[in-house]
Amino acid sequence: MYTIGIDIGGTTTKIGIVDHTGKVIRKTTVVTLDYPIITDYVEALHTALQPLIDEVGGKSQIKGIGVGAPNANFYNGNIEHAPNLPWKGIVPFGKLMSDRFKLTVRITNDANAAALGEMVYGIAKGMQNFIMITLGTGVGSGIVVNGQLVYGHDGFAGELGHVTIDRTPEARLCGCGRHGCLETYASATGVAITAREMVRKATGYTLLSQMPIDEITSKNVYEAAVQGDEVALETFRFTGKILGEAFADFVAFSAPEAIVLFGGLARAGNLLMNPIRQSMEENLMPIWKGKIKLLFSQLPEDDAAIMGAASLCV
Amino acid sequence: MYTIGIDIGGTTTKIGIVDHTGKVIRKTTVVTLDYPIITDYVEALHTALQPLIDEVGGKSQIKGIGVGAPNANFYNGNIEHAPNLPWKGIVPFGKLMSDRFKLTVRITNDANAAALGEMVYGIAKGMQNFIMITLGTGVGSGIVVNGQLVYGHDGFAGELGHVTIDRTPEARLCGCGRHGCLETYASATGVAITAREMVRKATGYTLLSQMPIDEITSKNVYEAAVQGDEVALETFRFTGKILGEAFADFVAFSAPEAIVLFGGLARAGNLLMNPIRQSMEENLMPIWKGKIKLLFSQLPEDDAAIMGAASLCV
Repeated sequence: MYTIGIDIGGTTTKIGIVDHTGKVIRKTTVVTLDYPIITDYVEALHTALQPLIDEVGGKSQIKGIGVGAPNANFYNGNIEHAPNLPWKGIVPFGKLMSDRFKLTVRITNDANAAALGEMVYGIAKGMQNFIMITLGTGVGSGIVVNGQLVYGHDGFAGELGHVTIDRTPEARLCGCGRHGCLETYASATGVAITAREMVRKATGYTLLSQMPIDEITSKNVYEAAVQGDEVALETFRFTGKILGEAFADFVAFSAPEAIVLFGGLARAGNLLMNPIRQSMEENLMPIWKGKIKLLFSQLPEDDAAIMGAASLCV
Repeated sequence: MYTIGIDIGGTTTKIGIVDHTGKVIRKTTVVTLDYPIITDYVEALHTALQPLIDEVGGKSQIKGIGVGAPNANFYNGNIEHAPNLPWKGIVPFGKLMSDRFKLTVRITNDANAAALGEMVYGIAKGMQNFIMITLGTGVGSGIVVNGQLVYGHDGFAGELGHVTIDRTPEARLCGCGRHGCLETYASATGVAITAREMVRKATGYTLLSQMPIDEITSKNVYEAAVQGDEVALETFRFTGKILGEAFADFVAFSAPEAIVLFGGLARAGNLLMNPIRQSMEENLMPIWKGKIKLLFSQLPEDDAAIMGAASLCV
């Protein structure tokens, strides 16, 4: 038996058929942006998937379809007010999909899907309590307690990118409309903003001053840091400090066995992990010092989102 | 059938036999401080309980013993390094109790027991997701997710009194050894400290200046606030603002249906609840505004701790 994983992004939708070991054995994509009408999009997914389903032996071989999408609600199958997707308002995506495919369809947000993927196929295999943090354009999270994902009363639990870590008047404005959210510092965008601030203040030489300041990206910061650039390294130290402080609070909440990092920014590896670990340890309550694992996702990066989504139907 | 609830405090241990409706039908106490040796204490509990057990029909009528105690670990039955109890180190309390009583014994910390009490007998009956916050000498918490208490990987989850809400150099020192914990502001002690700071700065008249500043307690603040004293009211507004900010972060974690308040400080009622609600609403992400219930425990105050502990064996 196989499962289908679909990862809906604002630009591209990744689709895959996953075997019982987690291997993605068939893959395709659909351009999300090409389908401003949701029923057209569902039809496009069907057209893309049907030949793959046939190749693995037909629908009888498929246990179900798991979908990871921004603002997706596990409880009711709806995608609700997702700012980066073409469909506005509340979209009954789960229902549309199950009507069209005549298969079990489960949906959740992308960070929750990532957490499930780690639990079923990845580094969190067998863990009953852990927290997944996705560091990308934004900061997402999926929380596992007693072996179950935490969806909360309304299906939207686990918005750890939006805990407030700066309450000063200088706190950065977040995309959610509030100020000082973790995401404004610990996302790729946040890292770029930090680097720009640091370059403006820098007195010594920095590789990052060789480009227009407002065009510095987190990728530039990474590349400069790898070359030992002090401003770039300091940017990661600052970001890691903030993440470590936030992680210490997360531990006080659910006392996880591990915190697992995933996403573009996590590629910075120890440049980011070392300062996170140091800051987290400094801020943990004594009972937890030295006891919380800090791990990177070990899933293949290209397939992780598909594997995570597919995990909903395992 | 009945359950036994035991609430171990640093000074007094409350003991009760609870019927299936949650009513405490027999009660007694033991002076915790009188028994510096743990086996003597267990023996004292047995001596105190045996006549009550006999009165309700003997041991065959008892489903089990639930115990609420500081630093109590649900997973292994140990009380570990509790600073306010007479027994040092790791005490295998659950095992000692079940050996002596020949009954099922379950233990957890007092705030978790309070949360269970609300879920089984109180205002959180039927709720699958809520957070209990106890506002007393310290700030404790019990978190319920998917109808289960969150114990975490090690049994110590739910230390929400120790999330950091002040990272400035002026942050108050906490009993846990760290700085800026929620507990340093939102406990009875924290409220007293806030009031003393405000009295020192006050320019107008305040009832609170009629006593030595360093002797002001949270009770004094409450009494002054009831009489409309502006400094006392401002103390509650400040405390409520901080609690509301913290609650908004807690909601981002587990999206609870409600946050339930209990404990001495919660007696301040709307003097505290109104500023908490205002601050929480201001700080919540848009998806949660107006949707999170803020409730007071409705359990009878004298029996709540016994009922909570007894809930472990329901």
